[in-house]
Amino acid sequence: MFTELPQRIRVNEVVTRDGFQSEPEFVPTTTKVELINALAGLGLNKIEVTSFVSPRAVPNLRDAAEVFAAITRDTPTRYVALVPNQQGCARALELGVEEINLVMSVSESHNLANMRMTCEQSLQQFGQIADMTAGTGMRLNGSLATSFGCPFEGQPTQERILGLVDAYLERGLHSLTLADTTGMAAPNQVQSLCQAVRARWPELELTLHFHNTRGLGLANVLAALAAGVDQFDASLGGLGGCPFAPGATGNICTEDLVHMLTEMGLQTGVDLDGLLLQSERLAGIVNHDLPGQVRKAGPRRQTRPLPHSVKQLMQDGRT
Amino acid sequence: MFTELPQRIRVNEVVTRDGFQSEPEFVPTTTKVELINALAGLGLNKIEVTSFVSPRAVPNLRDAAEVFAAITRDTPTRYVALVPNQQGCARALELGVEEINLVMSVSESHNLANMRMTCEQSLQQFGQIADMTAGTGMRLNGSLATSFGCPFEGQPTQERILGLVDAYLERGLHSLTLADTTGMAAPNQVQSLCQAVRARWPELELTLHFHNTRGLGLANVLAALAAGVDQFDASLGGLGGCPFAPGATGNICTEDLVHMLTEMGLQTGVDLDGLLLQSERLAGIVNHDLPGQVRKAGPRRQTRPLPHSVKQLMQDGRT
Repeated sequence: MFTELPQRIRVNEVVTRDGFQSEPEFVPTTTKVELINALAGLGLNKIEVTSFVSPRAVPNLRDAAEVFAAITRDTPTRYVALVPNQQGCARALELGVEEINLVMSVSESHNLANMRMTCEQSLQQFGQIADMTAGTGMRLNGSLATSFGCPFEGQPTQERILGLVDAYLERGLHSLTLADTTGMAAPNQVQSLCQAVRARWPELELTLHFHNTRGLGLANVLAALAAGVDQFDASLGGLGGCPFAPGATGNICTEDLVHMLTEMGLQTGVDLDGLLLQSERLAGIVNHDLPGQVRKAGPRRQTRPLPHSVKQLMQDGRT
Repeated sequence: MFTELPQRIRVNEVVTRDGFQSEPEFVPTTTKVELINALAGLGLNKIEVTSFVSPRAVPNLRDAAEVFAAITRDTPTRYVALVPNQQGCARALELGVEEINLVMSVSESHNLANMRMTCEQSLQQFGQIADMTAGTGMRLNGSLATSFGCPFEGQPTQERILGLVDAYLERGLHSLTLADTTGMAAPNQVQSLCQAVRARWPELELTLHFHNTRGLGLANVLAALAAGVDQFDASLGGLGGCPFAPGATGNICTEDLVHMLTEMGLQTGVDLDGLLLQSERLAGIVNHDLPGQVRKAGPRRQTRPLPHSVKQLMQDGRT
């Protein structure tokens, strides 16, 4: 199982988009910018900075353009914006965004609930966005939400998903994210779908985006690794959720993910101590507890001093 | 990875021992008995009922004998007691306990901190307990705590662990539990150790006992499954912890484990809905939140009704 894993794993941070979008309080623009600049120095592959959505739909990200204009973009990290439509794409082009993330749901009902569009309408729009950005050098990542289950429709067929990947590629999208928006993925399902996608498009850049809603986030990462996947989205502190999945506890936690990968001997290039520091800072920013566990328990390699009573037992010669 | 998994998995419940022992408030004896009787009907393989420790050391389990005498023992479930010494074994024999669980730590310092004995003293005692119980039909399970890491000493060598398993078997213990007492296991380490133990003792009954301290509990179960392990300890609601691992968030959660195994198509024989009901009840008993996540989010197969606004969009012919 662990003999043929990819040895170099890319970790993408989504906290300032997926995490902040559903917070009860608006996070000040300068705080967002400082956090993004601090994260960018830690070796993350991508940072999904914000979303160019309507300020009415997601008031917490109403400062998307200001944030993107203010961040320092001088690291190897790729700075991504989520873009829901052509207007959003136009704003991203103005700001010189390197990569945009386009999202639709595999299930019709979730796409209607989330995007107010049918899947066909979403695909049409992606084609128009591909035309708008042709020749600009902007990269287009296509996300398939509810790839592992929809709270209204249940589990989609693999055929349906592969058909939508085909549709993405026909419209000129460059890379793919399979997203478990509502935390419904199970490990064997993950391995099966990832194997199918990688078998059909071995050269396609593939990211997995898991939520830890039912405690399966890192088990699903393990299953994806076993299928050869080498790129994962995660959110600092595990902040995040989905308004259409009541009770959801958020994205997988970046520092818990990096901790697991590091302890498995895989290379991420990410500074775990730096992440833990920023996660501590994040708890202060949002002013509530975060689900991430390594911040609370410490990395496993960090041993503790012997309790005084044990030292005494040892000194007493009882060992 | 998932093609050669064991298809039938045995799940052991430890909440009334590992969970209750570190609760701030004493759980009344009748409440314990009712919970155990309710759990026993749900298809669990074993229930670790209590521990015959000193009432001074673990005041919350001071009613161990009353609990064991009062529970209904008429199901296929095996009712186990943890036994720290010969006095405890004598009490278990009086009560006709079918199986006792003997525990020592792989690391000297953790064994001193936890048991106030050296590892050699623990092993001597296990030999004496084996003599005491010979011919009584009582089964002896031997647990190796800190098998995947000690908070004071770090990771033990595989050689050390295999040597201690040898010592257990020489003293007549019947089955083995590898315990990740402080939640330090990582998936590749789990697979490697489980493979080594199963290769050397293919007929030995082997249980894995994980804590979810650093979020890796279910990923470690997956790794153990891949190594052929078919028996796991877990605690209802994820209640539990270890006084020597500050910040620890407890055992893996029984209902989250059964949910994962069920969704992977593996047979547990355990009634998930019944577990969820008892977990809800447990939250009321201990009067605080529990880490288990499936109770909050619902099983993944449980779809939700379409929101009214989506129904309207569909009726408007926009699909």
